[in-house]
Amino acid sequence: MERLDDVLGYDLKIYQNSSYFSFSLDSIILANYANIRLRDKNIVDFCTGNGVIPLIISKRTKNNIVGVEIQEKLAELAKKSVEYNKLDDRITIVNEDVKEFSRKHLNEFDLVLCNPPYFKIEDKSSFNESYEKKIARHEVLFNLEDLCECCKKVLKDNGNLCIVHRTDRLMEILEIFRKHNIEPKRIRFVYENISKESTLVLIEAQKCGAVGLKVESPIILYNLDGTETLEYKSIQEEVRK
Amino acid sequence: MERLDDVLGYDLKIYQNSSYFSFSLDSIILANYANIRLRDKNIVDFCTGNGVIPLIISKRTKNNIVGVEIQEKLAELAKKSVEYNKLDDRITIVNEDVKEFSRKHLNEFDLVLCNPPYFKIEDKSSFNESYEKKIARHEVLFNLEDLCECCKKVLKDNGNLCIVHRTDRLMEILEIFRKHNIEPKRIRFVYENISKESTLVLIEAQKCGAVGLKVESPIILYNLDGTETLEYKSIQEEVRK
Repeated sequence: MERLDDVLGYDLKIYQNSSYFSFSLDSIILANYANIRLRDKNIVDFCTGNGVIPLIISKRTKNNIVGVEIQEKLAELAKKSVEYNKLDDRITIVNEDVKEFSRKHLNEFDLVLCNPPYFKIEDKSSFNESYEKKIARHEVLFNLEDLCECCKKVLKDNGNLCIVHRTDRLMEILEIFRKHNIEPKRIRFVYENISKESTLVLIEAQKCGAVGLKVESPIILYNLDGTETLEYKSIQEEVRK
Repeated sequence: MERLDDVLGYDLKIYQNSSYFSFSLDSIILANYANIRLRDKNIVDFCTGNGVIPLIISKRTKNNIVGVEIQEKLAELAKKSVEYNKLDDRITIVNEDVKEFSRKHLNEFDLVLCNPPYFKIEDKSSFNESYEKKIARHEVLFNLEDLCECCKKVLKDNGNLCIVHRTDRLMEILEIFRKHNIEPKRIRFVYENISKESTLVLIEAQKCGAVGLKVESPIILYNLDGTETLEYKSIQEEVRK
C-alpha cells in the first residue's frame, strides 16, 4: 500500500509503501546528527531507501545531495517524494548498487551518510521477512566492509562518513573503520532513557583522518516518566528553523 | 603534610599527604562501578595509591583484597589507613612494582581494579609536577601495554579487569585490550552534565572473554543547574547500605 506521509515535524511529505522498508527514527536522528559544513559541496546518502535523509538534509544545505538505492521500488518512491517536495534541482536519486555507484564516482564526495543494514546475515530476526525488507535490514548485499570500501572510493581525502548503527556492533565498526583508515572522530550514544543501556550509536569518521576521538553528549530520548525529552523534541524541530 | 580525611560519605577514614597523589573522585566512581561477584575470592587493585579503592571495596565483599603501590610513602599511608579502619585481616597493601608483583602471582586473581596513570609521558601537563605526582599521573613506569601484560599474568581465565580512564584514550584502550585478548564487555561513559562531552570512561573487560560489548546507562554527575544528580549522590551512598 503506497501512501503519502509527513516526515515527523518537518515541512516535508514522503511516499512510503508498507511492502518495503519505511523510514525510521534512526534516519531522522542521523540526518540531525550529521555536521554539514559549508565546504560539503557534494553529499551522498548510501542505502537511501525512500529518500528520507536527503529530504531532511536539503533543509540545511543548498548543495547537491545524491541518494543511492539498489531497490527499484524504493528508489521510485524516493524520486516521487523529491518531485513532490520540488527538490529535484538539488536531490538526485540513483537506482543502483552502492558498490557499482562507488566505482564510477571516485573522490567526488565531501560527505557520505549511511543508515546501513544493521544485522548480520545469520541473525535470526530475518526469518519471516520478505526479501525486500531483508536486504534493507540485513547485510545480504552490503556489509561494513563494503561500506568502508565504497567510502574510500567516493570520498575525497579528509571527507567524512556519518552513520547510525546498533551499539552492540560498536567494537566491530571501530575495528573495521580503522583497518580501512577511516578514523572515528566523534561518537554520540543514544539512550532510550537515562537508566537504559544504549542501543543506537552515531559515528562520524574521516577518511585519512588524524587519531582523536570525542564522545559527545548523550542523546536521551525519553524522561523516566515516559515523556519526550527536550533534546528529542528539538531533533524534530532543529532543521525547521 | 599528612592528614586523616573522610572518604566522601563513607564510614571510612584515609591518610593523605599533600606531597603525593591524593585519591580522586575517579577512584570512587571506579570502586562503585565494579561488579564484585560472589566467586571473586581474590581481588587486586593495581596502582592503589593511598588505598582508597581497597577500602571502599571492603564494604562490599568479605574476600581478600590486595593493593599494590610502587611508591613507598603512598603504600605506607595505605597501610596506616587499613590499620586505622581495622581492615588488616582482609586488605593487604604491597609496596612493589605492579610488574614485579604480577610475575609472582600467576593466575591467582578473579578481579583486577585499576585507576592507572592517565597521561602519556610526552603530555605537557607534567611539566611542573614532582616526580612522585608525575609517576601517578603519567605513564612513566606503567602504561596500557603493561596493564594488559600484568592482567594476563595475574588473572584467572575469564577473570575481569575494571578500569577508569580518560575518554579521549578510548580507541587506544579498546585496541590494546583486544590485542591482548582482554575483551571489553561493558562500558559506561561519565558526563559532567547532559550537555557536555564525556571526559571519563569505565570499562570492564574479561581475560579470554567472548566478543560482545554493552554500553550501559550514562553516568551524569550534575544537573544543568549545577546541583548533584541522584545518581552521583547514590555513588557516595550505595556501599554504605
